[in-house]
Amino acid sequence: MTARLEDLPIRDDLRGLTPYGAPQVPLPVALNVNENTHPVPPEVADDILDGIGQALGEINRYPDREFTALREGFADYLGHSLTRDQIWAANGSNEVLQHVLQAFGGPGRTAFGFAPTYSMYPLLTRATGAEFLAGVRGVDYTLSTEDAAAQVDGARPDIVFLCAPNNPTGTPLPLDVIEAVYDASHGIVIVDEAYWEFAPREERSALTLLPGRERLVVSRTMSKAFAFAGARVGYLAADPAVIDALRLVRLPYHLSALTQAAASAALRHAPTMLQMVDEIVAQRDRISATVEALGYTPHESWSNFVLFSGVEDPAATWQALYDQGVLIRDVGIPRSLRVSAGTEQETTAFLDALASV
Amino acid sequence: MTARLEDLPIRDDLRGLTPYGAPQVPLPVALNVNENTHPVPPEVADDILDGIGQALGEINRYPDREFTALREGFADYLGHSLTRDQIWAANGSNEVLQHVLQAFGGPGRTAFGFAPTYSMYPLLTRATGAEFLAGVRGVDYTLSTEDAAAQVDGARPDIVFLCAPNNPTGTPLPLDVIEAVYDASHGIVIVDEAYWEFAPREERSALTLLPGRERLVVSRTMSKAFAFAGARVGYLAADPAVIDALRLVRLPYHLSALTQAAASAALRHAPTMLQMVDEIVAQRDRISATVEALGYTPHESWSNFVLFSGVEDPAATWQALYDQGVLIRDVGIPRSLRVSAGTEQETTAFLDALASV
Repeated sequence: MTARLEDLPIRDDLRGLTPYGAPQVPLPVALNVNENTHPVPPEVADDILDGIGQALGEINRYPDREFTALREGFADYLGHSLTRDQIWAANGSNEVLQHVLQAFGGPGRTAFGFAPTYSMYPLLTRATGAEFLAGVRGVDYTLSTEDAAAQVDGARPDIVFLCAPNNPTGTPLPLDVIEAVYDASHGIVIVDEAYWEFAPREERSALTLLPGRERLVVSRTMSKAFAFAGARVGYLAADPAVIDALRLVRLPYHLSALTQAAASAALRHAPTMLQMVDEIVAQRDRISATVEALGYTPHESWSNFVLFSGVEDPAATWQALYDQGVLIRDVGIPRSLRVSAGTEQETTAFLDALASV
Repeated sequence: MTARLEDLPIRDDLRGLTPYGAPQVPLPVALNVNENTHPVPPEVADDILDGIGQALGEINRYPDREFTALREGFADYLGHSLTRDQIWAANGSNEVLQHVLQAFGGPGRTAFGFAPTYSMYPLLTRATGAEFLAGVRGVDYTLSTEDAAAQVDGARPDIVFLCAPNNPTGTPLPLDVIEAVYDASHGIVIVDEAYWEFAPREERSALTLLPGRERLVVSRTMSKAFAFAGARVGYLAADPAVIDALRLVRLPYHLSALTQAAASAALRHAPTMLQMVDEIVAQRDRISATVEALGYTPHESWSNFVLFSGVEDPAATWQALYDQGVLIRDVGIPRSLRVSAGTEQETTAFLDALASV
């Protein structure tokens, strides 16, 4: 006889909840969680393994709590004259965002995001004791400077999440909207650029807005462009004072020596890793063109996925694809489904399956 | 010009704090953070590297969120007929404890520990919004059943931390004290067995108390006995309902595929890894005997470190050792210092340096 969860002295606000998480089912074509479906190239994997092998030589010791070499690697990769004292990292961008919430949010405070947006924002916010306030988006999930600033000004949140491009819609976010939201806010403004590498190359990242904006935070992840979802590495760039604040809330030695070694090695191969991005962008654009030809409405995407609308019965279409071995995501937006851009072969499998529905 | 931390909208309860952490200075003999100073044997490191190499083959995919293979590995290692549904793990035992606090503590609740004890308990408690209540210990840092139960009954905490053996004192904790505290409590009772493998082999772990006690949690770490501090792997055993509660508060995919592969491989070599434990225990007992001969008072230790008292000026002795290249820990207990048992050579270096002070 085991106990039941409701018999335990669990927190009242957790009673009746179920754990977050997309289903992990082994289908042949998994395009549901915006992974990079290209494995890390063998020459890069070899170098990562060399770095990890070295780290194993002193794995009996606690890792560098300041992960200095890794922060230097991120500063070099991001450019824009960033230095390591402006860099933070953690086990996935969720933990990076959790650290920001612990330092600047928490009980008695609020965080704000424009719905629909990344579904973890409200969960992370509530898990750290703050309240989540949802704003609204305009036509085709876009935001205008005036409307976005007015909503933030009205809500007066302690933290604003701006997902750029937005997940799950793929929508680009113009830099002037970020500037307007920053000026309208007294709190921390997080621009979540998890999918930034899939945006057009000529576009400017929010990193260019950092100088002179000490409340601005730009977060990234290695999960997508670097094909590193399994390694759990997220990071951010901000004013050094923000980094000092995050040091107050992180667990000591939160980044393992294995993680530090693996991420540092992968960053040294950034040009190779980013070659995959061009292939993925091509498949993304192919998805948009083909679903449109099939009569659906794809939304503009600067990410590695496409949200398409005009789906009469999303649950039925999702199941029909599932039955053909193709896993995509019903993100809860009416008449819409989201699919990640896979390899050419995976993308073909999805498009063929969708055409047959 | 960078901003100052006090200019940022940081939480009020974090203002003026400084980050936790022992100094990370590269001294020849580092015996300050209770690491296992023996590197992982080469044949084990090779097997770990093989496992990580396999994991790198699909590092572009999110890891198994349920870390099923690793939980099976821990259940096998711990024995006592435990099964994987009774096991949880996270990035270091600090994160394991944080998950317990998030599920069963948090704002409006309290956690309790018998001071002096592991310095992270109050920090973790407050970081998750709960209040920390400190009890007291008896002669030579021991606890009696009646006194411990009475203190817990009086404090009525939602979570009780019992460090067994206790850090930073090394003190054993009899099982009947755990039983008495459990019976006196309505909340979660965590027995932190981070150093358990260094206890006498014939002694019974708190794991033997799990059946029928659904509020009891026994936590462990791979940092010490498994020489894995750099890999950040903590774990616990408890009723399956407790594990379900922890699933509600963990970040999705909190354990990387690298961590899962490394820990699973190391567990397969448990007998080899634990051979080092006997050597360390021998050095610990040598430290106790020698510091006593030098006129200090060592406290009984079932761990991989020794707290010794009778130090007239701990700061001066600490500095004198430091100047000779030996780093130990001033844990803030009057007239006392703590030293980890190192290799025979490191232990000799410490004892020689202490004798010369």
